Amino acid sequence: MKKVDHIGIAVHSIEESLSFYNETLQLPLIKMEEVQSEGVKVAFIDGGNIKLELLEPLHNESAIAKFLQKKGEGIHHIAFGIEKIQDRINELKQNGVRMIHDKPKPGAGGAEVAFMHPKSAYGVLFELCDKTNIKGE
Amino acid sequence: MKKVDHIGIAVHSIEESLSFYNETLQLPLIKMEEVQSEGVKVAFIDGGNIKLELLEPLHNESAIAKFLQKKGEGIHHIAFGIEKIQDRINELKQNGVRMIHDKPKPGAGGAEVAFMHPKSAYGVLFELCDKTNIKGE
Repeated sequence: MKKVDHIGIAVHSIEESLSFYNETLQLPLIKMEEVQSEGVKVAFIDGGNIKLELLEPLHNESAIAKFLQKKGEGIHHIAFGIEKIQDRINELKQNGVRMIHDKPKPGAGGAEVAFMHPKSAYGVLFELCDKTNIKGE
Repeated sequence: MKKVDHIGIAVHSIEESLSFYNETLQLPLIKMEEVQSEGVKVAFIDGGNIKLELLEPLHNESAIAKFLQKKGEGIHHIAFGIEKIQDRINELKQNGVRMIHDKPKPGAGGAEVAFMHPKSAYGVLFELCDKTNIKGE
């Protein structure tokens, strides 16, 4: 793992929570988008050396909706910025890590992503986030 | 807030979880210490651009022991690296943020720290971490 790209944070409403990040913490908004494959609206916040990714569910079937129902608002995952995601997935599996995704899937901003199972990571939901193929990253 | 200094992660045992970070994720250990005022043993892991702080309770009265009992192992807090911590606390309070600590208290590595109440931060436990007075930081 090279570095941490972002920290995912589950919120009920980006609209309601955004002013806390922008005004109170004085961390600017980078961009917003919807990731239909994940059923989420995403706001990337500039945390200086890393990004904070606010995640709002688009519907009740999204994993973020289920997280909010079970645990409430709060920190959801830590994403490592990596390259060659399929190689990294294979290496982790060889080291006995259970992956939620054996193959990369599309994430926010056109990244390729895959999640480790928290049971293999002492309770932490870690994401692999590969932006190699994104222009300008 | 200038940048993210570290992400705190609650674990039952640093000894058991450390090889996952060092060997499986290939993130090296920076240092270990005990913070008696918090009732925790701490291991700092080099995450590249930020640190991961593994937190193991030293006794059942520590906040981390209570977190583990209630929620299990997982991500505990996000710490911003800041300067002039008392000024930052005062500014946050003026902006309506409820602080767990109105005054800085000693944290790991000799830092001065204070936590915002998650109810004022959309479910996230944010720490202010001031290392201005630490040599070599």
